[in-house]
Amino acid sequence: MDFKLIQICPDSKARTGELVTPHGMVPTPVFLPVGSQGAVKTLTPEEVKALDIAMVLANTYHLYLRPGIAVIEGMGGLHKFMAWDRAILTDSGGYQIFSLASLRRVSDEGVLFRSHIDGSEHFITPELIIQFQESLGADIIMVLDECPAYDDSFEKVQTAMARTHQWAERCQKSQKRGDQALYAIIQGGVFPQLRRQSAEYLTSLGFSGYAIGGLSLGEPKRVTLAMVEQTVAFLPPDKPRYLMGVGSPEDIIEGVARGIDIFDSALPTRVARNGAFFTPLGRVNIGNAAYSQMEQPVVPDCDCYTCRNFSAAYLHHLFSGDELLAYRLATIHNLSFISDLMRQIKSAILNGTFSAFKDNFLANYKPTDEQIRLEQKQKWFKSRNRGE
Amino acid sequence: MDFKLIQICPDSKARTGELVTPHGMVPTPVFLPVGSQGAVKTLTPEEVKALDIAMVLANTYHLYLRPGIAVIEGMGGLHKFMAWDRAILTDSGGYQIFSLASLRRVSDEGVLFRSHIDGSEHFITPELIIQFQESLGADIIMVLDECPAYDDSFEKVQTAMARTHQWAERCQKSQKRGDQALYAIIQGGVFPQLRRQSAEYLTSLGFSGYAIGGLSLGEPKRVTLAMVEQTVAFLPPDKPRYLMGVGSPEDIIEGVARGIDIFDSALPTRVARNGAFFTPLGRVNIGNAAYSQMEQPVVPDCDCYTCRNFSAAYLHHLFSGDELLAYRLATIHNLSFISDLMRQIKSAILNGTFSAFKDNFLANYKPTDEQIRLEQKQKWFKSRNRGE
Repeated sequence: MDFKLIQICPDSKARTGELVTPHGMVPTPVFLPVGSQGAVKTLTPEEVKALDIAMVLANTYHLYLRPGIAVIEGMGGLHKFMAWDRAILTDSGGYQIFSLASLRRVSDEGVLFRSHIDGSEHFITPELIIQFQESLGADIIMVLDECPAYDDSFEKVQTAMARTHQWAERCQKSQKRGDQALYAIIQGGVFPQLRRQSAEYLTSLGFSGYAIGGLSLGEPKRVTLAMVEQTVAFLPPDKPRYLMGVGSPEDIIEGVARGIDIFDSALPTRVARNGAFFTPLGRVNIGNAAYSQMEQPVVPDCDCYTCRNFSAAYLHHLFSGDELLAYRLATIHNLSFISDLMRQIKSAILNGTFSAFKDNFLANYKPTDEQIRLEQKQKWFKSRNRGE
Repeated sequence: MDFKLIQICPDSKARTGELVTPHGMVPTPVFLPVGSQGAVKTLTPEEVKALDIAMVLANTYHLYLRPGIAVIEGMGGLHKFMAWDRAILTDSGGYQIFSLASLRRVSDEGVLFRSHIDGSEHFITPELIIQFQESLGADIIMVLDECPAYDDSFEKVQTAMARTHQWAERCQKSQKRGDQALYAIIQGGVFPQLRRQSAEYLTSLGFSGYAIGGLSLGEPKRVTLAMVEQTVAFLPPDKPRYLMGVGSPEDIIEGVARGIDIFDSALPTRVARNGAFFTPLGRVNIGNAAYSQMEQPVVPDCDCYTCRNFSAAYLHHLFSGDELLAYRLATIHNLSFISDLMRQIKSAILNGTFSAFKDNFLANYKPTDEQIRLEQKQKWFKSRNRGE
């Protein structure tokens, strides 16, 4: 047994639990910072630990292309390579192959694609992805999935789902190591009947955990949440549920309320490098002239390293001058904010006050305008080249 | 008395001493990391302290343009603004005005220039530069100097020197605070008679310390060292001597041998961000394929944070992927290398073994080829825009 449920909220599907891994216990709900290339951007492992983070995400697609799986295996595995002795989840890279790489051809056998780094051609199968992840040695590993775009047709999404199911089965069969938890990825796009079908099929195979993939890709938030509800309804209560690519403070709370245990997203670290700081009232941008002479920290009662040591004016100055220290300090603040949020969520569930906590948080927190958010996301999809 | 000589090498002009400042004692010879904009690039104050660094340099020119002197004064001064409670030396920015800004007009009164950031026009006088540095509140402050190019004619260099002398006198007269040590800057280019004249004139005015400016700007190394010798010969033994803009490990050792107490340079941190790591055998570039699978640290017996925790292969990987963590880890290594070097130099002088230490270090350390070095320097002069 590698997941233990501890408490369920009486008013929602929110729950607390514990993931038991070879690299320590991970309390849930948990948010995984993204370290696609084997580093949480700008931070040392010690800094990530100091943020009370028990598990990080790395990406098989990125590490396969650079430095190569064999290099990391030769160095004693991913934990040793990146000097991180707590838990790691490796994503299979299915999503990256279908979004970041130039996709050449997908067949039942596998997928032929070109590297986004050097254009080299690669053929990947479900069996290879498991072999790679066994070499990397993460605590939780993911099946290879085919991830359609959020606005693809029913037929396209159905085909991708069916292939994802076959691949999940092949991943399961090819697994050799007994010390890694393999999670399936539920697809089905924005079609409720496909989500149900995917959840039912994959749970019938029996995985250690279930991820919800193919969401938060540009569809409206209400659709994301509806699909989460529709999927969770067909998942076993005793297995961990992982909502991939989410996210923002408000989305995490909504996900928890719908029964999600695990989240990951590059958002907190990515927006930090653009000068956006999370506050209890929403995101603020440190580049705003209002901060140029503010002697207080960005969030006065925040006890993160950044807010304990530096004024908003100093951060404003570092961002104006493109000082690399700026990106670190913002990253520390945002991950600290999310880490605090997860602690508060857990404690509220344990105390039976989660619904009140959620209502209160959402009443104060002004989400970034959805239209702006979607535009930023599209812009990011088009421009990204730094491995997140 | 703010400088105490402790020991002089019997075979050279090398010496150890102590600078007494309002923010602690600074043992000499000392190297100051550069934090032009109020941050040692990529590092937190805690990290700089952990490298056993007792004083950093910040730049009045940069801080005047951004965020503005009044902002920093309003925040309680530079120490508080940048959260650094050890000693600070502020350069006057003379060199930056004459190299980085678009110079509009220099007169005996002062200098009119355009900001390298936004093209705005500014008129600066010696009195203003002292006023700015009194507002910033550094422990050691510098006079405004006119810094000619290394290949300027004798007449041009002589005129700049004469103006530097007048300005130094005006700086001295306008100083109000009694708790800051004001250092003069000796100019005179590559002309021995001017160097002597400048040293004799400025020492006759009586400053707390003497800097040698206008060197390491593109002239050959043997010329730099000859000018250092020619200048030090006319400086009082009981005052600290500061060689501005130097530098590399080999140049620091040669400077110490010629009686220099204080050094500053962006070189160790700048080359770090390009992947160059100091080793006892010379600089190596982590981008070299030889490091792609090296399980050992870059410098196996180095006990810096970077070498204690990460393989050369991981650093190679981080640099390949443009991970910001790479720049931090390289910066820590290079500053740790220089910090160790300064400790070894002091201990060798105290033990009377400095000459042997110097010969041994230089026999092993292969300096970067001078031609390449000068080309890199020229390239950097042309391209820099990040405040170092």
